[in-house]
Amino acid sequence: MNQRQHKLNALIENERLDIAFITLPKLIYYFTGFYSDPHERFMALVCVKGEEPFLFVPVLDHEKAARVSSVKAIFSHKDEENPYAVLKAHLGSRISKIGIQADHLNVKRYLALMEITGAETAIDIEPRLNSIRRVKGEEEVAIIKRAIGCIEEVIRTTLPLIKPGVTELDIVAEMEYRMKRLGADGPSFDTMVLAGEKSGLPHGVPGNDRVREGELLLIDTGVFVDGYASDITRTFAVGEISAKHKDIYDAVLQANLRMIEAGRPGVAIGSLDNAAREVIANRGYGEYFITRAGHGLGLEIHEYPSIYGGNPDPLIEGMVYTAEPGIYISGLGGVRIEDNVLVTANGVEVLTSFPKELTVIGG
Amino acid sequence: MNQRQHKLNALIENERLDIAFITLPKLIYYFTGFYSDPHERFMALVCVKGEEPFLFVPVLDHEKAARVSSVKAIFSHKDEENPYAVLKAHLGSRISKIGIQADHLNVKRYLALMEITGAETAIDIEPRLNSIRRVKGEEEVAIIKRAIGCIEEVIRTTLPLIKPGVTELDIVAEMEYRMKRLGADGPSFDTMVLAGEKSGLPHGVPGNDRVREGELLLIDTGVFVDGYASDITRTFAVGEISAKHKDIYDAVLQANLRMIEAGRPGVAIGSLDNAAREVIANRGYGEYFITRAGHGLGLEIHEYPSIYGGNPDPLIEGMVYTAEPGIYISGLGGVRIEDNVLVTANGVEVLTSFPKELTVIGG
Repeated sequence: MNQRQHKLNALIENERLDIAFITLPKLIYYFTGFYSDPHERFMALVCVKGEEPFLFVPVLDHEKAARVSSVKAIFSHKDEENPYAVLKAHLGSRISKIGIQADHLNVKRYLALMEITGAETAIDIEPRLNSIRRVKGEEEVAIIKRAIGCIEEVIRTTLPLIKPGVTELDIVAEMEYRMKRLGADGPSFDTMVLAGEKSGLPHGVPGNDRVREGELLLIDTGVFVDGYASDITRTFAVGEISAKHKDIYDAVLQANLRMIEAGRPGVAIGSLDNAAREVIANRGYGEYFITRAGHGLGLEIHEYPSIYGGNPDPLIEGMVYTAEPGIYISGLGGVRIEDNVLVTANGVEVLTSFPKELTVIGG
Repeated sequence: MNQRQHKLNALIENERLDIAFITLPKLIYYFTGFYSDPHERFMALVCVKGEEPFLFVPVLDHEKAARVSSVKAIFSHKDEENPYAVLKAHLGSRISKIGIQADHLNVKRYLALMEITGAETAIDIEPRLNSIRRVKGEEEVAIIKRAIGCIEEVIRTTLPLIKPGVTELDIVAEMEYRMKRLGADGPSFDTMVLAGEKSGLPHGVPGNDRVREGELLLIDTGVFVDGYASDITRTFAVGEISAKHKDIYDAVLQANLRMIEAGRPGVAIGSLDNAAREVIANRGYGEYFITRAGHGLGLEIHEYPSIYGGNPDPLIEGMVYTAEPGIYISGLGGVRIEDNVLVTANGVEVLTSFPKELTVIGG
């Protein structure tokens, strides 16, 4: 067993579980080194108390799992088999308490696992798994830095192509092409390029809208590299923009800087959100900052912790999170400036290095 | 209410539900015309018996939902709120039976919905929803045809660039660039380009492996266009390949053709898989056909029906599915030939048109 698997066994001991099922593919990767997206097929890392964990995979992943995973025992099921009946044959008989990922396991699988184990209770081990994952080791930070380096290179080399008249989707295509050529696994989420008024939609979708002189252009993008995500947002001025646009930009930039300053081990995570929110409220834009200020980042693009005002959990050395305050004004546009931040022994290290001063493009 | 929403209300009546929660984003899109991926935030189309359905979305999607959805009432929750507590205020008090998507809803949300509704029973309405979705209307088939046209153009224009020495990821980058430039929403799944022996892994992942003379190259790819997926596989010969490679190719091609011939309304879905499997077994490769023969295709890349030997459900006019027999031989390579097929009144229409005879590339 590797060190991470030992932590999993300790979790099982501490929670007095008989068995735990890890079902999120990225977490199976974290614990075993084997990654696959099985789509609707059932896959789990099965951890029986006091034993070595085993992998249970669709048969078409059996060979790969055997080749790349750190787990010795691998069992598989065929498409024509009931996976739960096959799994039952590999389980012991006296099971009363199981651990599940309640944020990920669907109801159908949950009911099937309860039935084949005969368990009386299911415990959500997600919070305990988050405690293991939330602190990134040096090797994980090194991978995240590569994911950031990749996406910053993508932005840098795409900017010169952006002129008034090109569409949002043109820019997305150029960016995603560069991601692949630079060796990324792919975008870590749908690449967001929003022109003009659309920058005011925190969840807008790129389309055939065109870049126009005198407007904002918001780019929110990231890549997966070796399974780990980067996630950065920059907002640009296309030619000369209005004084109002500039004021919004400056308010968001100050909020971003203040939020980064506020980070160090031990402070409440909610205080980071509050720090950013206070700056924006003082500038008169409080009602337009309608999202949380950030989120944890790692194997998933959004993971623990969620950075919102009421989060009392402490910031811990080794956490990696996004700092992404924004102002979104319907009909005018929006600004978001998002960095990726690592908590160090005494403060934070900003991992993203793309310039944040207002940059004019499209000339 | 639109016609699809009327079907939803009929489902609620028939199942004697008090309320149903549609939580899969693509299905919310199907019923309302509004699409968003809310990541870990809670979103649902809430259908109360005898009433117009309402949307419950994260606040950052409120504006878009109001703009594009066919639903009149939209309620939203902020990141700092408990979404279930907010939702509870919009629900009536006498709820005893709720409908859920058990394949999609996670355990945490399930328990929260049970608690705020006070329901005694939850029914999995996924099979009933599948019955609604499985028959594609003319307008849906038209969109799927556009998604197929797009991906076939991508393959056609990428093939001339494939020469011995280029890597799998180089080809993926060129293809995904073309997808975006042709107006696709994006790939409908991770674009699979597998060279040489790796073509023998049904779930292989493209990497820095290079295209080599005398080997097979398998390309399995698709795009989403306006929310609907295409999914096609072709396997190519890079220069001159061995007699064994050619024999495998021909066996798969015959199985693909036989499977397509077998399709017409009323036959058991399993018979399509059996038809393909019989051809491959007769050629002596039975043990190497380790996947199901196909799957339904539409808003999701894998949806109802699953095409495996034991599926007794009837094929129905309007279904769209993949026909994708394959032979996967460890150490040698694999061949898969995958088409997208529509069930018509008397038989089937093959929607994909990319040539299937063995094609030599890389010259």
